[in-house]
Amino acid sequence: MIDYQLLNALSAVISEGGFEKASKKLFITQSAVSRRIHQLEAKLGEPVLIRTQPPSPTALGKRLLNHLQQVLQLEVALNVEALNEHTDLNTPLSVKLAANADSLATWLPEALAVLDTELACKLRFEVISEDQSIAHKRMKDGEVMVCISSSPEPVNGGLVSPLGAIRYKAIASPDFIKQHKLTELSQLAHLPCLVFSEYDKLQHQFLADINGSAPLFTHIYPSSEGFKQAMIAGLGYGLLPTLQLGDSLVKGELVDLFPEYYIDTPLYWHYWQTESPQLKTLRKFALQVAGKRLEPINP
Amino acid sequence: MIDYQLLNALSAVISEGGFEKASKKLFITQSAVSRRIHQLEAKLGEPVLIRTQPPSPTALGKRLLNHLQQVLQLEVALNVEALNEHTDLNTPLSVKLAANADSLATWLPEALAVLDTELACKLRFEVISEDQSIAHKRMKDGEVMVCISSSPEPVNGGLVSPLGAIRYKAIASPDFIKQHKLTELSQLAHLPCLVFSEYDKLQHQFLADINGSAPLFTHIYPSSEGFKQAMIAGLGYGLLPTLQLGDSLVKGELVDLFPEYYIDTPLYWHYWQTESPQLKTLRKFALQVAGKRLEPINP
Repeated sequence: MIDYQLLNALSAVISEGGFEKASKKLFITQSAVSRRIHQLEAKLGEPVLIRTQPPSPTALGKRLLNHLQQVLQLEVALNVEALNEHTDLNTPLSVKLAANADSLATWLPEALAVLDTELACKLRFEVISEDQSIAHKRMKDGEVMVCISSSPEPVNGGLVSPLGAIRYKAIASPDFIKQHKLTELSQLAHLPCLVFSEYDKLQHQFLADINGSAPLFTHIYPSSEGFKQAMIAGLGYGLLPTLQLGDSLVKGELVDLFPEYYIDTPLYWHYWQTESPQLKTLRKFALQVAGKRLEPINP
Repeated sequence: MIDYQLLNALSAVISEGGFEKASKKLFITQSAVSRRIHQLEAKLGEPVLIRTQPPSPTALGKRLLNHLQQVLQLEVALNVEALNEHTDLNTPLSVKLAANADSLATWLPEALAVLDTELACKLRFEVISEDQSIAHKRMKDGEVMVCISSSPEPVNGGLVSPLGAIRYKAIASPDFIKQHKLTELSQLAHLPCLVFSEYDKLQHQFLADINGSAPLFTHIYPSSEGFKQAMIAGLGYGLLPTLQLGDSLVKGELVDLFPEYYIDTPLYWHYWQTESPQLKTLRKFALQVAGKRLEPINP
């Protein structure tokens, strides 16, 4: 059987971003961490780590981490916490979950607050904010137990449940419209445009859809709530989830630039085939919340 | 004089996170990027880059990047855009700014929306969301033009203006209080606690202040708005900026767990000594907005 001490050392080096931090997490010395990694590589005859700062897993390392996530799931299902090392019976189980920032800011909090008190005290969430495409990669690489991604493709060893779609509308403030004398959408390409990050292509898609142009002047503003506030303050226009609009349109704080237009981003709950009963309960609950808050996914 | 093509290549490799992406940014081939870095290192007789993935600057590399930021500031002040390569007169100047997530979600959007239309169309913000301590390091390393940090210490070549303090209150939802039968603050150490990231020690400080304990059960939830939503949904308790409370206390969505208690996190605007007039206008405006929205800094 595999010596899981070795895989745990590999997992800690990757998740903590280095040997020193891994040693603190595992309560062992740094040289003990190195020894475990070397032992793993000696057995395999191949490296599992690329020694960069932070270190990254080789293809083989990724397969091992992916396997480890599945074993951890099975251990959750087994639910015999007394067998776990370094944990007492009161220690909750860690669920690492990667999701896009707009989900984090809108429907996901409610979905994670599973109503059952007993379960609520048994799951400890470690949420990672990532662009949808990168969240999917983290799942593929075996770094997380659950990921919320716009890709419907299950990863190797994984399954997928459709959640629904976040609907985005093209939004600006009345001040922005006045200040830039905006009368036609074709002017937008030259006006300040908000993007969440370099991966956020929603604004590009919007301009491409309306007249084949692209934003020439973009502010990068990586905060979901800040994105809305920046629009209200008149820093730029952009695409905002309808979930975040609240009563801003009614109050006249924000304006829908093109009422007939929207972009739907579908979201899928990715999980491992070895899903434990606790995580199944969580998934079913998340699907219920998403069903109420998100739009149906178009076929 | 220094060949700034070489420093620009170094800057692009660091900011883009690799040689290939740097080459795309600079519109040159990847081998031309490598050649420039080698040329720089041959001249200096020392490496400027640590070849990790992503690459990081050596101490000498950091000094060069810090210098480059200051030169760029001077160029902004010179305001003769026609001299710039690869830019036409309509290209706005990029201002790289690092700030903490709670600033991004609350008072900063208004501060960046400088009222003057002419200036608004000349500055393009590239905002980076970082923990206060890391934001300061980015300034030190010459990666950003402005940083908002809780440290009052100017970096080498830099100056500081105090902005004010974000006030944090200990908050939970009525459901959370009921579900966990919370009657005394001493129970909190054992109940689910929300932390923004591994660097967020506010919740630890709170428990240490009230009875010398520490949170034993933490959910990591890296979204400012999501943090508040997770509290409302009952996922955990935590410290929330008063700026985010809105009317949640009045509406009974959230409860102030300890009305006499708060933690103030002071914030400082860090900038380079070579500050351009445009960035000075921005700073003065940000100080005004912060003066209205933040608490005074305690001496």
